[in-house]
Amino acid sequence: MTFLFNSDAQRGVVFRGAFARELPHLPFAIDPATVNSDLVRYIISWTVPRGLERYRNLEILFSVGAGVDQFPLAALPSEVKVVRMVEDGIIRMMQEYVTLAVLALHRNLPAYVDLQRRREWRALSQTQAADRRVGLLGLGVLARAVLESLKPFGFGLSGWSRSDKTIEGVTTYCGPAGLRQMLAATDILVCLLPLTEDTRGMLDRDLFAQLPKSAALVHAGRGAQLDQLAVLAALDTGQLAGAVVDVTEPEPLPADHPLWTHPKVLLTPHVAGATQAETAARAVIDNIKRHEAGLDPIGLVDRNRGY
Amino acid sequence: MTFLFNSDAQRGVVFRGAFARELPHLPFAIDPATVNSDLVRYIISWTVPRGLERYRNLEILFSVGAGVDQFPLAALPSEVKVVRMVEDGIIRMMQEYVTLAVLALHRNLPAYVDLQRRREWRALSQTQAADRRVGLLGLGVLARAVLESLKPFGFGLSGWSRSDKTIEGVTTYCGPAGLRQMLAATDILVCLLPLTEDTRGMLDRDLFAQLPKSAALVHAGRGAQLDQLAVLAALDTGQLAGAVVDVTEPEPLPADHPLWTHPKVLLTPHVAGATQAETAARAVIDNIKRHEAGLDPIGLVDRNRGY
Repeated sequence: MTFLFNSDAQRGVVFRGAFARELPHLPFAIDPATVNSDLVRYIISWTVPRGLERYRNLEILFSVGAGVDQFPLAALPSEVKVVRMVEDGIIRMMQEYVTLAVLALHRNLPAYVDLQRRREWRALSQTQAADRRVGLLGLGVLARAVLESLKPFGFGLSGWSRSDKTIEGVTTYCGPAGLRQMLAATDILVCLLPLTEDTRGMLDRDLFAQLPKSAALVHAGRGAQLDQLAVLAALDTGQLAGAVVDVTEPEPLPADHPLWTHPKVLLTPHVAGATQAETAARAVIDNIKRHEAGLDPIGLVDRNRGY
Repeated sequence: MTFLFNSDAQRGVVFRGAFARELPHLPFAIDPATVNSDLVRYIISWTVPRGLERYRNLEILFSVGAGVDQFPLAALPSEVKVVRMVEDGIIRMMQEYVTLAVLALHRNLPAYVDLQRRREWRALSQTQAADRRVGLLGLGVLARAVLESLKPFGFGLSGWSRSDKTIEGVTTYCGPAGLRQMLAATDILVCLLPLTEDTRGMLDRDLFAQLPKSAALVHAGRGAQLDQLAVLAALDTGQLAGAVVDVTEPEPLPADHPLWTHPKVLLTPHVAGATQAETAARAVIDNIKRHEAGLDPIGLVDRNRGY
């Protein structure tokens, strides 16, 4: 049995140390060239390693990241379990980023950055949090943690997902009719959806048109979910008042793309959440222990859903 | 007995309605010209109304704002109680603003705004919240509320004030030696102090030099507390990595001031907290009831301290 680590060296050091302490029976390999591929039971990687078929006894393929959209799920051997990264570090980072982004839009920060650029001292009218409705697209682990972070500020909170869910203090919606209902009642829309064929291109002109006038967007899902020209058009008409965007298509965003320079956009380079080595090693170790005990790992991907 | 309202008309409408419901025995006046000055027991105002001496039976002068630095305290009749505004609306706004500012500095937002300006897609190294120490200057009602808002994010929290205080989950310091100790252990410094002769010009070169290299500043106290050239110099040497500044001296900040254009500064036009009419009316009404019952009003100013 071997665990094959196929990611950056810095994280590798942390993983190797944690595995030596917690799973001393499991050999830890970093170099695929020197490993006996028949012995590899577990691989962690961002993309699928070339020649995956040679790992004939592979049991789990772990994603380094919270998403698995970079894996060609349909092409992977059906007996291999694919596992998303669910770990405290990325959850905390996403709580910070989305709280920052929602508060920034709530308190007109994009407009104040623009006023600062023009050296103009002018207070803008301020809506109270109790009159501001935040709606989340996606109700997975990250979204639920984000909702907990937003609760103390007194925003009205709602969330939408594919299947019906119940969360205390949050109005939940599901399905196409539920999406329309939530959008009509959302002032700040936050996208934390996984990228699937259903969500690709979902943040488009039609969706923005269903929001109240002067709504705002936080996009921390995947770049391919957002129609970047549609968001710019919605900002220009005032349908959207502002946007905080962390993910684009492609990444890096080309230097001549108008999203860089729109005065109502705050753009960050896909930094909202990043897997943290210590907590990720902990999560992967726990999942291997679960697997060895006959339990499903946390974050097991349903290939039909695509996440 | 009369309550004299000397502030903006919009807030006046809200106050008048609340007073009619809650204190029907107390006449409510807006126009000083038509009021019998001998009957005025209470005044609410931002600055001291001209000819204050004519209100010979004045018992309480309420400030519209959280600060009373705009009042010449020593020149006011000693028998008049001076009361700061302590109300839920401004507390909530300050919680939002400081949380936004601390998260912005924690997540390198000023640097990302600057990178966006230069159309440069580059992730910066990110410190975890558990390794980031936030230190508050001031431990009054606003600062305590802000500390509660910051707690869930896992920052190390400390606070300094003139007199010793105990707050659960917060390392507290007091006095000059305590200030030095806290500064040496603070990565993000937040100023929420009242403006007094002791705090005027306090955020200066010497103070910044006592912070660890690459610390950051949130200034939401009063403009006159900050040496604006010193903060720019500290940003230029890298002693400070970033600053979020809401108050300046003078206000508005002149268009040619270099604070407007420094790439590591986010500047907002004194909007962190603003007195909210509904909750402020509630607070003033409660204070009049306390006063009538022989209790000290909440926010009673100690003229020796100056706040």
